[in-house]
Amino acid sequence: MARENHAIDHVVLAEEAHVHSAWDNGLDPVRTVAPGEVVRFACRDATDGQIGPDSTAADVAALDLDPVHPLTGPIEIDGARPGDVLAIEILGLEHEGWGYTLFPPGAWGAGLLAEEFPEPGLFVWDLEGDVGHFCDGIDVPLDPFPGVIGVAPAEDGPHGTNPPRSVGGNLDVKHLTAGSTVYLPVAVEGAMFSVGDCHAAQGDGEVCVTGIEAPMSVRCRFELLEDRSIEQPQFETDGPFTPTGRDEPMYGTTGIADDLVTATEAAVRHMIDHLHDERGLSRERAYLLCSAAVDLKINEVVNDPNWVVSAYLPERIFPDSPR
Amino acid sequence: MARENHAIDHVVLAEEAHVHSAWDNGLDPVRTVAPGEVVRFACRDATDGQIGPDSTAADVAALDLDPVHPLTGPIEIDGARPGDVLAIEILGLEHEGWGYTLFPPGAWGAGLLAEEFPEPGLFVWDLEGDVGHFCDGIDVPLDPFPGVIGVAPAEDGPHGTNPPRSVGGNLDVKHLTAGSTVYLPVAVEGAMFSVGDCHAAQGDGEVCVTGIEAPMSVRCRFELLEDRSIEQPQFETDGPFTPTGRDEPMYGTTGIADDLVTATEAAVRHMIDHLHDERGLSRERAYLLCSAAVDLKINEVVNDPNWVVSAYLPERIFPDSPR
Repeated sequence: MARENHAIDHVVLAEEAHVHSAWDNGLDPVRTVAPGEVVRFACRDATDGQIGPDSTAADVAALDLDPVHPLTGPIEIDGARPGDVLAIEILGLEHEGWGYTLFPPGAWGAGLLAEEFPEPGLFVWDLEGDVGHFCDGIDVPLDPFPGVIGVAPAEDGPHGTNPPRSVGGNLDVKHLTAGSTVYLPVAVEGAMFSVGDCHAAQGDGEVCVTGIEAPMSVRCRFELLEDRSIEQPQFETDGPFTPTGRDEPMYGTTGIADDLVTATEAAVRHMIDHLHDERGLSRERAYLLCSAAVDLKINEVVNDPNWVVSAYLPERIFPDSPR
Repeated sequence: MARENHAIDHVVLAEEAHVHSAWDNGLDPVRTVAPGEVVRFACRDATDGQIGPDSTAADVAALDLDPVHPLTGPIEIDGARPGDVLAIEILGLEHEGWGYTLFPPGAWGAGLLAEEFPEPGLFVWDLEGDVGHFCDGIDVPLDPFPGVIGVAPAEDGPHGTNPPRSVGGNLDVKHLTAGSTVYLPVAVEGAMFSVGDCHAAQGDGEVCVTGIEAPMSVRCRFELLEDRSIEQPQFETDGPFTPTGRDEPMYGTTGIADDLVTATEAAVRHMIDHLHDERGLSRERAYLLCSAAVDLKINEVVNDPNWVVSAYLPERIFPDSPR
């Protein structure tokens, strides 16, 4: 079914006419694409250029949220009908050498621990090939993926890009890396696919509300599966599931509570304590690092009435660890 | 600090006087152990022998829950005082060639999808070295760990073994495999450590309420850290994070909802659908397999108001997959 080469059939630039910041099935498609074709999308960063390499935390407090997230598209998939499944093979992503992780002022209520971080935070990353440089010699491996990937909803009118929906959108599944395939349920004629909000890296959970946000290009190939039916997105991936793609040392902190969100908050809070007490990071830097590089797993969700969520920190990101 | 050999200094058999099925700081220690010493604990299965290699689902419906979980211990750690951290190095676990995964009748309310599975379910596994044999040629790699590992709580009187607590207990952290170290906050003089409920394998989440439950022996070495302080358990682990210990193909199903538990339920329900529709398993067998071999990750917990949890199925457990 799929061709073996990755020749690009269509290029969608991130110019104004190709960018939208709401899901809406009434948008005109910027291109019609046949199943099997390859498209390269140029994607703006999540703030649509409001944060740049020279920005400071003060710029975060001044953010206008209306342009978030600028998505590239929509493209119409020739022949797609409601009830079909659209398969999107992620062929590759390229960053531009920089990115950022931020959390807004706590009063905005964004991020898992918003109440504990009243002041906004920002770290601008130098991205060098497969590595992002953090403070104190900490290097985070890069595994880029699109944070937002979806098709238009069946319901008419504009819909915000922040919440993910059954048709996809702001999924933030960090394993949708090059080589992965995403399956989305088609809700309208032509599917009307858009993509954006690329992350150079992210921890499972994206706890402070951003990964390593970066302008990026994304290459995808599209196929239609007319004999399948799914309710919400599914995917195939080879990971990576650890920074090196093989077993390696992790430090884990548990959160134990009778509510799954409270357990998640506790696991992250304990990891921030660990990064502060044992690794000397400020709590703000630790929170940013958790969002970019620490993974949340649900260990058990059945031992009534207490659930366990843990945060997993790869030790190899530190300069004193064997790499 | 730690000795390099694993010579066993103490053996605690699973005889009646060494087994208890409630946490209680008033229990007499079965042994006093010095920091640095190695102890081998014989541990009964979670039902205390009510399920055996020849059991059927009818035996699950007749279970007496009072003996669950039979824990081996407690042992007193010489010199442990409240506020210390007890480090437990997991040196090794050995199964006895069989194990089981079960879910009780739905009316008992145990398990993530109890309402959807009114009848009890049971699968008895043949465990052969590092592999557990499921139906239809499906082989699950074994990575044994103690499901329950903890110290006595500060509060007097008996406490159930089902809920995990800040002092540990029924954590079901599947990465506490041989080579890992668990850190527990000591709440009473002597710490009063117990262990049990061993699992030959488990998916993150343990969604149907059991892993591969098995009688097993556990070897641990103990150390006291008097200069550290933690609120809830922490750990160091090298995984494994995938069945092979390196990146490999996974099939993922998302659950997207405005409640984290509902999202978790949806991810598991979609995985059961996938295992039924694409792999031909009955829904009961699929639920059991999810609990033994499918991992739950929190992809994002910040894209207000919808969270994403995904279930990850390793493709290599199927006989038609490359291994």
